[in-house]
Amino acid sequence: MKKLLITAALTLAVSPLMADEGMWQPHQLPTIKKQLKKAGIKINPNKLTELTEFPMGAVISLGGCTASFLSPQGLVATNHHCAYGSIQFNSTAENNLLDKGFLAESFDKELPAAPGSRVYVTVNVSDVTSNVNAASEELSGLERYKAIENTEKALVAECEQDAGHRCNVVSFHGGLEYYLIKQLEIKDVRLVYAPSSHIGKYGGDVDNWMWPRHTGDFAFYRAYVDKDGNPAEYSEDNVPYEPEHYLKVNKEGVDKGDFVMVAGYPGSTNRYRTSAEVKNQFEWWYPTFRNTLQEYIGLIEETAPEGSDARVKYASTLAGLNNAEKNWGSMIESYAKGDLLERKVALENDLKAWLEANPNMKAKHGDAIDALNALILENIAEQERTLRSWAINRDTLTGTAARLYRLAIEKQKPDAEREPGYQERDMVRFKEGLKSMERRWDAEVEKALLKHFAPLYAELPADQRLKSYDEFMGIGETFDAEAFSKKVDAMYAKTKLNELETRLAWMDKSVEDFKQSNDPYIQLAVATYDEKFERELESKERGGKFQELRPQYMSAIIDYYKSMDKPVYADANSTLRVTFGNVKGYSPKDGLYATPFTTLEGIAAKHTGEEPFNSPQNQLDLIKSKEYGDYLDKDLGSVQVNFLTTLDVTGGNSGSPTLNANAEFVGLIFDGVYESIIADWDYNDDLNRSIHVSSAYMLWVMEHVDNAHNLIKEMEIVD
Amino acid sequence: MKKLLITAALTLAVSPLMADEGMWQPHQLPTIKKQLKKAGIKINPNKLTELTEFPMGAVISLGGCTASFLSPQGLVATNHHCAYGSIQFNSTAENNLLDKGFLAESFDKELPAAPGSRVYVTVNVSDVTSNVNAASEELSGLERYKAIENTEKALVAECEQDAGHRCNVVSFHGGLEYYLIKQLEIKDVRLVYAPSSHIGKYGGDVDNWMWPRHTGDFAFYRAYVDKDGNPAEYSEDNVPYEPEHYLKVNKEGVDKGDFVMVAGYPGSTNRYRTSAEVKNQFEWWYPTFRNTLQEYIGLIEETAPEGSDARVKYASTLAGLNNAEKNWGSMIESYAKGDLLERKVALENDLKAWLEANPNMKAKHGDAIDALNALILENIAEQERTLRSWAINRDTLTGTAARLYRLAIEKQKPDAEREPGYQERDMVRFKEGLKSMERRWDAEVEKALLKHFAPLYAELPADQRLKSYDEFMGIGETFDAEAFSKKVDAMYAKTKLNELETRLAWMDKSVEDFKQSNDPYIQLAVATYDEKFERELESKERGGKFQELRPQYMSAIIDYYKSMDKPVYADANSTLRVTFGNVKGYSPKDGLYATPFTTLEGIAAKHTGEEPFNSPQNQLDLIKSKEYGDYLDKDLGSVQVNFLTTLDVTGGNSGSPTLNANAEFVGLIFDGVYESIIADWDYNDDLNRSIHVSSAYMLWVMEHVDNAHNLIKEMEIVD
Repeated sequence: MKKLLITAALTLAVSPLMADEGMWQPHQLPTIKKQLKKAGIKINPNKLTELTEFPMGAVISLGGCTASFLSPQGLVATNHHCAYGSIQFNSTAENNLLDKGFLAESFDKELPAAPGSRVYVTVNVSDVTSNVNAASEELSGLERYKAIENTEKALVAECEQDAGHRCNVVSFHGGLEYYLIKQLEIKDVRLVYAPSSHIGKYGGDVDNWMWPRHTGDFAFYRAYVDKDGNPAEYSEDNVPYEPEHYLKVNKEGVDKGDFVMVAGYPGSTNRYRTSAEVKNQFEWWYPTFRNTLQEYIGLIEETAPEGSDARVKYASTLAGLNNAEKNWGSMIESYAKGDLLERKVALENDLKAWLEANPNMKAKHGDAIDALNALILENIAEQERTLRSWAINRDTLTGTAARLYRLAIEKQKPDAEREPGYQERDMVRFKEGLKSMERRWDAEVEKALLKHFAPLYAELPADQRLKSYDEFMGIGETFDAEAFSKKVDAMYAKTKLNELETRLAWMDKSVEDFKQSNDPYIQLAVATYDEKFERELESKERGGKFQELRPQYMSAIIDYYKSMDKPVYADANSTLRVTFGNVKGYSPKDGLYATPFTTLEGIAAKHTGEEPFNSPQNQLDLIKSKEYGDYLDKDLGSVQVNFLTTLDVTGGNSGSPTLNANAEFVGLIFDGVYESIIADWDYNDDLNRSIHVSSAYMLWVMEHVDNAHNLIKEMEIVD
Repeated sequence: MKKLLITAALTLAVSPLMADEGMWQPHQLPTIKKQLKKAGIKINPNKLTELTEFPMGAVISLGGCTASFLSPQGLVATNHHCAYGSIQFNSTAENNLLDKGFLAESFDKELPAAPGSRVYVTVNVSDVTSNVNAASEELSGLERYKAIENTEKALVAECEQDAGHRCNVVSFHGGLEYYLIKQLEIKDVRLVYAPSSHIGKYGGDVDNWMWPRHTGDFAFYRAYVDKDGNPAEYSEDNVPYEPEHYLKVNKEGVDKGDFVMVAGYPGSTNRYRTSAEVKNQFEWWYPTFRNTLQEYIGLIEETAPEGSDARVKYASTLAGLNNAEKNWGSMIESYAKGDLLERKVALENDLKAWLEANPNMKAKHGDAIDALNALILENIAEQERTLRSWAINRDTLTGTAARLYRLAIEKQKPDAEREPGYQERDMVRFKEGLKSMERRWDAEVEKALLKHFAPLYAELPADQRLKSYDEFMGIGETFDAEAFSKKVDAMYAKTKLNELETRLAWMDKSVEDFKQSNDPYIQLAVATYDEKFERELESKERGGKFQELRPQYMSAIIDYYKSMDKPVYADANSTLRVTFGNVKGYSPKDGLYATPFTTLEGIAAKHTGEEPFNSPQNQLDLIKSKEYGDYLDKDLGSVQVNFLTTLDVTGGNSGSPTLNANAEFVGLIFDGVYESIIADWDYNDDLNRSIHVSSAYMLWVMEHVDNAHNLIKEMEIVD
């Protein structure tokens, strides 16, 4: 999507030039060959369409993060923050790898990654739109929803007949297109090397989303398979996976203006939302929900004070909530400064005018915009309920009991007919979820949250509350805080769901067992099931309508853009994408310019000796004595640490290899700047910058700080 | 002084090139003509030596601030913060000029400036070194001190025979040279125009010392004289002063890289302090005193809470204290990051080596460094006492009584023999000081401060305390806080010094009157006088020794620099200086570059609607509609607001006209960046930047925001 400019009269001017915006599906790249060449690519863009060829064959998913193969022996590079769980998993108080860092000096000293760690290698992407659409004409919302779900499940089940693979059907453009993604699922992943967190997480939350940045956000895994080369669970007998393709590592990093591209798995964007959605999201949802979030965070911090065991359990939850809070804050700021809404309105007006002026298009697309906007307003009416119920719905015991009971119900059906998330293929993750509560849950904190936020829910009109929940919990027309508190205390005193063995045992119980249980949370799950299921169906009914109307709107948009010779990329959806652009600084504010590089000296300047700015002494000594080794950037007079690019990325791209014009590895993307957080909704040429750790700094740390000579030897280093 | 670089081995390398460092006395400029031309000056540098010619004749002092004449009718431009007191003085709750701004549409509507406001026009500077030195050979420290003081007083008295003038003898290089400065003292100063504080103080304390900056820190006075053209107190019959010279105003401001210079009255720097002084100042004095300052600030904020009447009275005090606190914080930071001490040590070692290698120089300068350093260490031994007594010495009633009693004693002598500060020429200021207590003093706050900090003093060893003070206040070997508190309360209950009339009346009383007074603060003053006077003599004895040894050290330094063909400027001492350099950005930290200009759009971006970022709506409207008028900077695509230069300035330079290569007025200097605060001790080419408000922004505000067409018409605008 091109940047849309507004003149004073609010008429829309569409820029005729491509910006660096765009998360392209690999098969789209030949259509934008010109732009790629203009930006500076040297390899043939057509090569990027072949997922099992170089370089795309070297790009892999970790599920939530991206990574890449950097050696013929399955060496995997990703972000430190993507491998954080595995470093933590292998740490003890006496041997804290987060603090010290870790380097396996030989293959046999590599450590198992955290349970559930996976490497996914995309082996095939096929367009299944016709299969899905065949199943979905002239249906109610709910029927459509179920029909699509059933088709998807069937396609997945068939695809997963090929052992060792995991498959997914993913919708593009809100359901205009569907693709079946097939991925090799490597289950034995091991930790090879991670610098100390004092390098890998340097700057911590303070520097999160910030520039200037000096984070060595990288770590190495290795993928293992069985002796026959097939995915297998961890075993001493497994051998390193030998990928067909891996990336060469350029030891010089990048220069100002260089062409760069990133291949990866961006999670989610909202670039094609309508004006009604944008207005609601930025003027109601973010500001309102952010208040709730701040209250929620404050209460956790109060009931799980710094230094307490409970705080350790909520560290990760707090990090996530604070992240969202900061994220939304930035978006609210950017929205207030910008003209996103005006441009959305202008786009819709222009689209309508274009439809009126083109009868055949009008005939094809009808009133897609108005129909979608009407549905959106209907959906918005639900949001007060969603917000006010958010905290009590988030209650862990309530949710766990509900999921377990649902599992018992779903298990009564054949596997193929079960709700997604409750099929056999989901059971490993289901169990991991039940286990993780041990590390992330504290009764006192949860009770405090539930009691604090119950009034917010109880103030909803009766018809928006859950009758069965109210009855069970004793919530009447006026909320009796004391009675509610006593009820919660009594339930906590009696429930055994806080015990791991009990939770796991419930996975195998029957619906009848649930109905006869005297565990209050199991009873709550049973009592509220029918009403919640009803709500779920209503939600699916709306979902099904969106699956009908959103594609119609997107189809109109695509035709409109096509009339201007403008290719359209789909919103991010955790599928493999390519984005390209250049190394470039930006002006975060009037009077300041963010230069595209930081250097070693900046690490020393930030060092305070206190977290998160506590650089290892040997790194500081090396910087002080200017031991740049082979990695001196003559223009900078030092070693480049992090750099800025115009690449269009979002969460999920973390760990993606940054490639130069020859598709050599020049670093890892790990963040975007504060001003670009709103990019999930609105890409801005002037402000959208992503932050990368340079291959030069990675190699410098490996060679000079951590003596990881074995890994440098294993990789193919070029300059 | 050139920038001194240190190699790894700590030997000193002196840069052969001139940097932009230097606060030059006008008579020195011909000796650095080459550097001025290289930097880009177009007028003949020799012209800058003539104080009563163009352009120096247009540069004036306000006492503490600098200013300049911008019209043949005595129109004076200075900083908004230099005219702040006068704007405040003319404001009432109903007619708040700080809020609304003020513009006199005709001469008769101009308002009297705050009492005591002066315009000083330097008319002559003469070297009186030989007069002063003739009086001071082979003397004890105290004798030397008194001899110099007497010579100075005689020179001043003679000079001030010329009615309407004020004269001062000022020492340069710690006493190596003395100059007699003669200034015309214009006493009728009127407020002509000040933009709203929402422009003139935009960014307030938050942006103080910060870049990016968007402050319209300018205001206009007019100087008035009697009908005969002589200085006179305010009278309706007075007429505008017609200066012989005034500056033309360039409406385009400056371009990147432009030559600029500032003529003004910088207050004080410490560029030639020894390593011992630097080490003590940064490693003991600033960190230690800063803690006391923070405690002091905290206590005022506590006892004079936000919104109280007392807080209004302490607003200015707090601003000053917070300013110092931030200032010292920056210096401590910069010192820790830099190598100032190493360079000072290296300089002294190199100087010693040079003296050893040059016997004639060794014979001339002897052991000047060691002698001075020994005296410095002796002086440092006093600082614990100074620090611990600081807060109680600062007590207003104690100090006021002491000054009044001293006045009675001094008045017993002929005027010429009195202590400086107690002569007839000082009485206007003396009285203003007594009056100002009305607006700046609150009994509860003062009592709280005295009681809180008394223990700090009382913990000093007995021989460092003031015996007479201890006896009067009942302080024994162990401090009895309750007894001290009761004593203070009793004194406050009984004293009448809190009444203005009483204080003024004491100005005319005799020593005997003081001795018979039953006012406890007067009694305290009488009781402690002798001991304090003894201490004062000890301090003057040390001062006299410094007056002997510092010039010897400076003489050695100057000869050493001369051997390298390096001109030496003197530390700032509130006398007229010229500094030159260029418009240039800087890198405040790795990965960031401060561009040399801010623009109108940055004002709108900072606007929050809350102080200190509350831009007037009409300014915001003009910015939104891009009404740049004649002031568009095409490179910037907007009007330049503030800009950065390499000029070497310090406090006292505020309000100085910024001149371009043709000596046209292109703006006003009003601040330096945070990283350059340490420049009072150590100029750094890379980080020393001063902040100016552009003439383009001044004129844009005058023309478009405030309709000050009458003033634009009065000035000579060029481009």
